[in-house]
Amino acid sequence: MNDKKLPLKPPRHLCLLFLFLGMYLTSAQTNKQRPPNFVIIFADDLGYGDLGVYGHPTIKTPNLDKMAHEGQKWTNFYAGASVCTPSRAALLTGRLPVRSGMASNKQRVLFPDSKNGLPADEITLAEQLKKVGYGTACIGKWHLGHKEQYLPTNNGFDYYFGIPYSNDMDATGGKNYKEAAKEGPSAIKIADYNVPLMRNTEIIERPAEQNTITKRYSEEAISYIKKNKDKPFLVYLAHNLPHIPLFASQAFSGKSERGLYGDVVSEIDDGVGKILATLKEEGLADNTIVIFTSDNGPWLPFKTHGGSAGLLRAGKGTTWEGGMREPTIFWSPGKIKPAVITDLGSTMDLFTTFSKLAGIKIPENRIVDGVDLSGPLFEQTKSPRKNMFYYRGTDLYAVRLGDYKAHFITEGAYGQFGEREEHSTPLLYNVNEDPSEQFDIAAEHPEIIEQINTLVAEHQSKLVKGKDMLAERE
Amino acid sequence: MNDKKLPLKPPRHLCLLFLFLGMYLTSAQTNKQRPPNFVIIFADDLGYGDLGVYGHPTIKTPNLDKMAHEGQKWTNFYAGASVCTPSRAALLTGRLPVRSGMASNKQRVLFPDSKNGLPADEITLAEQLKKVGYGTACIGKWHLGHKEQYLPTNNGFDYYFGIPYSNDMDATGGKNYKEAAKEGPSAIKIADYNVPLMRNTEIIERPAEQNTITKRYSEEAISYIKKNKDKPFLVYLAHNLPHIPLFASQAFSGKSERGLYGDVVSEIDDGVGKILATLKEEGLADNTIVIFTSDNGPWLPFKTHGGSAGLLRAGKGTTWEGGMREPTIFWSPGKIKPAVITDLGSTMDLFTTFSKLAGIKIPENRIVDGVDLSGPLFEQTKSPRKNMFYYRGTDLYAVRLGDYKAHFITEGAYGQFGEREEHSTPLLYNVNEDPSEQFDIAAEHPEIIEQINTLVAEHQSKLVKGKDMLAERE
Repeated sequence: MNDKKLPLKPPRHLCLLFLFLGMYLTSAQTNKQRPPNFVIIFADDLGYGDLGVYGHPTIKTPNLDKMAHEGQKWTNFYAGASVCTPSRAALLTGRLPVRSGMASNKQRVLFPDSKNGLPADEITLAEQLKKVGYGTACIGKWHLGHKEQYLPTNNGFDYYFGIPYSNDMDATGGKNYKEAAKEGPSAIKIADYNVPLMRNTEIIERPAEQNTITKRYSEEAISYIKKNKDKPFLVYLAHNLPHIPLFASQAFSGKSERGLYGDVVSEIDDGVGKILATLKEEGLADNTIVIFTSDNGPWLPFKTHGGSAGLLRAGKGTTWEGGMREPTIFWSPGKIKPAVITDLGSTMDLFTTFSKLAGIKIPENRIVDGVDLSGPLFEQTKSPRKNMFYYRGTDLYAVRLGDYKAHFITEGAYGQFGEREEHSTPLLYNVNEDPSEQFDIAAEHPEIIEQINTLVAEHQSKLVKGKDMLAERE
Repeated sequence: MNDKKLPLKPPRHLCLLFLFLGMYLTSAQTNKQRPPNFVIIFADDLGYGDLGVYGHPTIKTPNLDKMAHEGQKWTNFYAGASVCTPSRAALLTGRLPVRSGMASNKQRVLFPDSKNGLPADEITLAEQLKKVGYGTACIGKWHLGHKEQYLPTNNGFDYYFGIPYSNDMDATGGKNYKEAAKEGPSAIKIADYNVPLMRNTEIIERPAEQNTITKRYSEEAISYIKKNKDKPFLVYLAHNLPHIPLFASQAFSGKSERGLYGDVVSEIDDGVGKILATLKEEGLADNTIVIFTSDNGPWLPFKTHGGSAGLLRAGKGTTWEGGMREPTIFWSPGKIKPAVITDLGSTMDLFTTFSKLAGIKIPENRIVDGVDLSGPLFEQTKSPRKNMFYYRGTDLYAVRLGDYKAHFITEGAYGQFGEREEHSTPLLYNVNEDPSEQFDIAAEHPEIIEQINTLVAEHQSKLVKGKDMLAERE
């Protein structure tokens, strides 16, 4: 054997060449093969006007303001419903909740004694993303069924940490919330709400220590991201605040000029800042799409413990703009071009957009209401969403088409904003010119009403209402 | 003569040394001796909620949004009155208009047949700055007296280009504005408002070509800055829009989703962008303080031709927050630290702050209501303003002290928001926690009302009401 003829080491410049080639190929392969990560940060009952960058004078949200400045601030973005359970079903399935049975005229949301939850044949965004190997975490409030078969871990999520329904449920008969709110934060007791905190399918704390819950949710999200960074991931971080009862941790309590509600929103904002910082530190920011939005408008009867819809009319529970239009920010530095987007979008579009970005087919055996928002997000083209259907329970109350919105039925919520009224000629507003829905222009625009009527007829001709999953209670 | 022994040229390195030394001295001298320039951009009837960064969904104001991001966005900043003439008097004199006689219970503002104007013994910010050699320009709407002795050129301004009162005055009896507004922009005719455009004391155009007036005001400001950059200057750019009748130039007409009102605000925003760019290009940005604000709240009866106060209550003409709290941005890159400021401020404070920055004494023979805002602007300290008096005409309707506001009298305006009502126990709101003034907490806080009563007694004990300068008409 002649060692000299077969040098063990190749010349150094060749080494470097191979090294670089290897790095190039790995990187190209990674970029091509690795779809983006998704982080959905979903607030509960946060109003359209409750962030600094959406005009609130005293709620300080420096992290969300910065996120909006670096990303896209959407101003015509809608939740799929004006209350919690149907709104969450819409986000996760990409479908109007009337289709999945997650809307009802008998019970607005699920309760701790509800029998059912999200039907097994509904496909969640998490189930979609699992098809191509995403890591999936649901952190925070679920509210799509608390029995084991309905929990996140049975709906496409690898991991769950959170409460199964609203934070004001399992009330133990303590002080009336409105009275406690008047007395001040110290009168609002954790023990008055015996809500369970779960990890996967186990209850790990009861009552959930709600004063630290916002902080812990953000920490769980960060920890999940750090542990799962080697494969694509979905983090669905659904805070259960600022839904009442309001709680903030010590670092935020009593700090906001907006009072306890402001403390709570500031703590959510702080978590957002830490999550974005983590994505940057881990080198994941440019391949992660983060969205911040809310499930429905502010719960106005709770006065300063409810939020503000800003200039929009009414709030939670109604099909006025204040009930369903949400402050919404998309962020992905380098990918999403900073802008204010006035095009229409909906939480239902996340299902479609994220599925497409991950290279997964949209299910063909059902109607999916989501559209792909990649155009406005990445290519400065217009949103394909041109309309929005505003349901209350299983009744269609209003329809938006372009600039216009027709109200066929109007009704206040929680004793505010008037009784149920059916309109033989719908009320018509140009909600881009008149965002507060003050000036009915139905008489001037019969042609628009006709267009909307045609759209409704087409919509209803294909509508199959799902079996009511909310009505039955034990 | 021996040329070789006396070189005409000193060695090159010595040249450079002297050159740098000269530059250093000149620069040091300039920095020490030259006080900052001031640019005040004042909109007319713009509401608290009418900029993107203050939460409007469809009015696009990228330049003002950027100005806010680079500068300070103030969220508790007040005009000195809720209508035009007294508000302008307050800004320019640093005094509540009730003191100068520029407020009246008989006439809310000056009209083309008004006899009087700002009293000669009032000292304007321009007169102050002239004391140390500032160049001073008033561009836009004046509204403090149209007779020669009352014009800007007789009130400390070297230069005036603008209209002497509101853009809806000198109406020639054309179509009713509300009717024209319904028909669309083309039904609003320039000739229906025979308002004069003046340069110094001469009328140069009548009726003023209002469709190009916003653009021309911004151009005049830029031209003045370029011509006067070698000495310190004050540019008071008081747009006469978006006060009705609304007009926009061709480049902006029909562009905004908010309709004509949005077109107009976008054109003002465009001018702001060009002015800030000029200051940067000319190397003046770091020694110029720019403020953008408005004279009073939105004129709500004009529907989509009036603005929006966002989440604030009511609008122009009232002492509710929507009448007097203004979107306000301070900008001076490198000097003003970017922030959202929730401390109190007022247009009256510009008189005091700018006088101090220019090294000019505040007049001692009169009460000046302005305070020095240098602390929050430059040193991250709290604003010295702790209260605000809300007058309507010459009556004190409401008083703010810290977080709280007491209404002694409430009254709607222009047939909206209710009749005049005196409150034996004032209504009390925490306007930082409850910015929409919805939840009266007078019963819970008698001690705050007592503090406010003490403040009012002290204020009134020193108050000398000026002779009514608005009442007399010819």
